Amino acid sequence: MASGKPASGEDALIARYFRPLATDPGAFHLDDDAAALKPNGDDIVVTTDAIVEGVHFLPDDPPDTVARKALRVNLSDLAAKGATPAGFVLTLALRSADEAWLKPFAAALGEDAKQFACPLLGGDTVSTPGPLMVSVTAFGRVPPGMMVHRSGAKPGERVMVTGTVGDAALGLAILRGGKVHAATTDIAARDALVGRYRVPQPRAAMADIVREFAGAAMDVSDGLAGDLTKLCGISGISAVIDMESIPLSDAARDLLSRGIVGLETLIAGGDDYEILCTVPEDRVEAFVQASRRAGVAVSSIGTVVAGSAVPKFIDSEGRQITLERLSYSHF
Amino acid sequence: MASGKPASGEDALIARYFRPLATDPGAFHLDDDAAALKPNGDDIVVTTDAIVEGVHFLPDDPPDTVARKALRVNLSDLAAKGATPAGFVLTLALRSADEAWLKPFAAALGEDAKQFACPLLGGDTVSTPGPLMVSVTAFGRVPPGMMVHRSGAKPGERVMVTGTVGDAALGLAILRGGKVHAATTDIAARDALVGRYRVPQPRAAMADIVREFAGAAMDVSDGLAGDLTKLCGISGISAVIDMESIPLSDAARDLLSRGIVGLETLIAGGDDYEILCTVPEDRVEAFVQASRRAGVAVSSIGTVVAGSAVPKFIDSEGRQITLERLSYSHF
Repeated sequence: MASGKPASGEDALIARYFRPLATDPGAFHLDDDAAALKPNGDDIVVTTDAIVEGVHFLPDDPPDTVARKALRVNLSDLAAKGATPAGFVLTLALRSADEAWLKPFAAALGEDAKQFACPLLGGDTVSTPGPLMVSVTAFGRVPPGMMVHRSGAKPGERVMVTGTVGDAALGLAILRGGKVHAATTDIAARDALVGRYRVPQPRAAMADIVREFAGAAMDVSDGLAGDLTKLCGISGISAVIDMESIPLSDAARDLLSRGIVGLETLIAGGDDYEILCTVPEDRVEAFVQASRRAGVAVSSIGTVVAGSAVPKFIDSEGRQITLERLSYSHF
Repeated sequence: MASGKPASGEDALIARYFRPLATDPGAFHLDDDAAALKPNGDDIVVTTDAIVEGVHFLPDDPPDTVARKALRVNLSDLAAKGATPAGFVLTLALRSADEAWLKPFAAALGEDAKQFACPLLGGDTVSTPGPLMVSVTAFGRVPPGMMVHRSGAKPGERVMVTGTVGDAALGLAILRGGKVHAATTDIAARDALVGRYRVPQPRAAMADIVREFAGAAMDVSDGLAGDLTKLCGISGISAVIDMESIPLSDAARDLLSRGIVGLETLIAGGDDYEILCTVPEDRVEAFVQASRRAGVAVSSIGTVVAGSAVPKFIDSEGRQITLERLSYSHF
């Protein structure tokens, strides 16, 4: 700049693509080193989740889907905690400042930020010789002390889950080729499953309802079976799950009935981004109705029971199924 | 766990090394998907900075220094904004869960979290095939509307900087070998400069003072010259800097006097993590005294002037120096 050169690449890049997203007054147009969240008496719920190329998304996933996934996995956490989105900060580790990638990335991020009323507050852009990584820390608000926890599930409560599970795992299997890809000849089904993997649908509409009805809640990101096991462990309870009642999409049910995949794959697969919660028996009906009014299908899949055993999964003939693999682990 | 296996590697690792750091009640012992920050009427200041192996730290930097640097670069931002630390979340991208690396990393992170009263609130651990990356989002508190901005500098104010600049750039040069390494034969000087690169000293003690006295402030992370240029641009002013008055350590002054490095290298080098701020002329003396009481040396290095030109750097003979390179840019 002293010698008449333009601003550094990083600054120019931030200005061009990300400043238009920083619509919140607390973002100070990204002109500063920090953002400010105004107090309104609510607790600020903080969650952070990163996605890494080749691990959480594929190298040839379109940039707009990468942006949406990075934000939405965090919005999913906020919804499961009963929190209303308030904003997010973004750390972007890039190999190069490639405009053809950044432009659609930022555009999609801006669309999602607007759709979910979760504005960009700040961020950091760093270069890396390695895989792309997008790390988001998202903020939400809940009335004081009202964040919904993983702990708090009580014997007798029903185990509830939103939407359908296993679709994202099938989507990933399709992108990787192999038997699920070969068996899914219907293009619409294929696109729908791949879409579930690439662009999660955070259950933002459920935040208030989870807060009102759930004893315990978390989002399902590493597989229903493993995440339920975590919830049980932290709540100090166990659960009995009726495998027949686990909600599946038509596409998943079709692949299951044809023997292409097992139910185990579906309930241990990651990236569902549905909400798993427990609801007192006498409030289940009201919970289901409130969810329906919010446009979200919820299913009762089992019961919380006393004890410290891992959850039992019971098949249609009443047999207990031992799962070989509960969830996805990075290490 | 269903088959008697231990918890997944990621969970076990988090529990062993990071749960002991999560001392704040809002961290919920890292048992949850999210943390909660309690409102106390203050604004929550949010800053995020990531460090990448091979870019912001060297592959053979000790894990304890990597931990401290990751947190401290964020604490430096908070101090420059006048904010008191309130906590942080951590995203750790690792190639493997290597205990020999994680144990000292977590121990040092815990020590720093305690020293700076900035507890771990939550985080995410992801695997990466690429370089290690540590991304921190840190939170601080300021009375409502009192965050100190990069904007706000006014003509007539003095340009002030804490500590000394250029040492970290020299430390990096030493680690890379070459002429600075060869010329620094004194082991204590070498260690001190390398220490400045590896373990920044955030000016946390200056937060209240910056808030009380500074018109505008930012931390110097990408080189004094470039960061001052940013501050001027955003404040809509210019500055005249007396290069003789830029504070240098004895080691830096020695290398400069022997012609091993130029002043330009020192003021365009990154990783200083000092505070650059502007202070009204009639308050400079009180600012200096308050800083001294806080144990921090501050230097007056120039004057804010009207205009939109880049800052002028004037040498000891009154000549204006044109800098070839203002700062470090990742791209």
